[in-house]
Amino acid sequence: MQLIDGNKISAEIKLEIAKEVEEFKANGGKTPHLAAILVGNDGASETYVSNKVKDCEQVGFLSTLVRYEDTITEKELLDKIVEINNDGDIDGLIVQLPLPKHISEQKVIETIHFKKDVDGFHPVNMGRLVLSLPSFIPATPFGITELIKRYHIETEGRNCVILGRSNIVGTPMNLLMSRKAYPGNCTVTVCHSKTKNIREICRNADIIIAAMGSVEFVTADMVKEGAVVIDVGITRIKSDKTKSGWKLTGDVKFDEVAPRCSFITPVPGGVGPMTRAALLKNTLMAAGKEIYL
Amino acid sequence: MQLIDGNKISAEIKLEIAKEVEEFKANGGKTPHLAAILVGNDGASETYVSNKVKDCEQVGFLSTLVRYEDTITEKELLDKIVEINNDGDIDGLIVQLPLPKHISEQKVIETIHFKKDVDGFHPVNMGRLVLSLPSFIPATPFGITELIKRYHIETEGRNCVILGRSNIVGTPMNLLMSRKAYPGNCTVTVCHSKTKNIREICRNADIIIAAMGSVEFVTADMVKEGAVVIDVGITRIKSDKTKSGWKLTGDVKFDEVAPRCSFITPVPGGVGPMTRAALLKNTLMAAGKEIYL
Repeated sequence: MQLIDGNKISAEIKLEIAKEVEEFKANGGKTPHLAAILVGNDGASETYVSNKVKDCEQVGFLSTLVRYEDTITEKELLDKIVEINNDGDIDGLIVQLPLPKHISEQKVIETIHFKKDVDGFHPVNMGRLVLSLPSFIPATPFGITELIKRYHIETEGRNCVILGRSNIVGTPMNLLMSRKAYPGNCTVTVCHSKTKNIREICRNADIIIAAMGSVEFVTADMVKEGAVVIDVGITRIKSDKTKSGWKLTGDVKFDEVAPRCSFITPVPGGVGPMTRAALLKNTLMAAGKEIYL
Repeated sequence: MQLIDGNKISAEIKLEIAKEVEEFKANGGKTPHLAAILVGNDGASETYVSNKVKDCEQVGFLSTLVRYEDTITEKELLDKIVEINNDGDIDGLIVQLPLPKHISEQKVIETIHFKKDVDGFHPVNMGRLVLSLPSFIPATPFGITELIKRYHIETEGRNCVILGRSNIVGTPMNLLMSRKAYPGNCTVTVCHSKTKNIREICRNADIIIAAMGSVEFVTADMVKEGAVVIDVGITRIKSDKTKSGWKLTGDVKFDEVAPRCSFITPVPGGVGPMTRAALLKNTLMAAGKEIYL
């Protein structure tokens, strides 16, 4: 069994990006610049956004953090997005979700110009993903494909089971793993709340990507000997074994599943750090006009 | 075994559309108007386009057919598309594929305004399909969902196997059958040229949608008793049993598979006519501004 080390790969990617930024600048290029909008004071959102800002500093990007009280109107927020769309210095824009209920997330996502949509949530980027055209791929799926690549995990012709069909993980992973490319060319089955025989389907999988947000759902009896298991779940649960009284837990019962696997990601330290690295890669590609001119 | 009669359903849909057009006009609405561009003199393309024009007449739509020699430049074609995009009277625009090699099909597809993209091939429409937002759904998948609905075929929690992963059939069907809706909520597996155990996967399917373009690929031993089989394949093969010396054949070996099925579509007369009806429905929705304002 080989542990997939998301922290290590993420650190490698950050070093590569930092180097590319230096070369960019040495050749007279601009400094990549990410803008993030945070509305309200949700604790988790604050942490996510401040991590993203830190990541930018670490690799030599500029970052702009725009903060609003949760009393901001939808129109004010949309106006700000349009202003950033038109700001020639800013390459990528993310709006931290969730948003207060009086603001339409879908309207926000569609207002961000698709060329600056480094979260990859805009319909144009999703549609280009369907069509196998270059696009910004949502950070978590993008991060997972990087892990698969860097551990040289074979995917062609293998049965891949995806647990969950969310817009930001399950569905893009479905498209990525079934398309004609590497990683890809898998025979993909997507399971969800209406699936009747999940355990049996999982037992046939060469690759399981668990993204249901259901604590320790995947148990040893669901995993074939030699399977690859990617755990996207990350739930904070009470624990009497940590100082804080909390611990982060995945969708996979790691201790019993790991011995059966050829490769497995831990939680934390697997997919999580890759999501952050993938956002940086998207921002670098936006600055370098690698996806769109 | 119940035969799914695409000709009958398609005729019903056309009558419904014709009635809606009359009501539209009676209430002072405009006549739906489809424009089609045909480049070159390919026999099959000529037939397809002239059928679409006939369909329009039959339901009371206006249609405009624009024809070009295959010597037209890409720029001339794109300019014409932009002109039609800006024509307030035209609701929907299709460009018949394939196009001559010197013209980029992708550029043509992306130049059609997504609000007039009644073929549903534009990235915005594909992306909105991923996100379960209202969109123009490509005609063949849309037609298949209509057949499923009108025969009241249960889909929730059932295993659906899709053979083929094309942009115009397999991949949109994957998205439609796995999403949280009716038809949908299936556990979908997509098989393709790299899939290793297609026969075994098919034997587990409650619903098989065959869209590989591989003559009589699906045989009786691949089909579970009571399965639903939708045959999207349509290939012209030589036959000594017809006057013309040719016959249309699907991806399913109909004679031996049909007795095992709860529902099955024939070829011809199954999915084919539904594709034509679906294009009319998309055009009607475009005229009625039901998807986009």
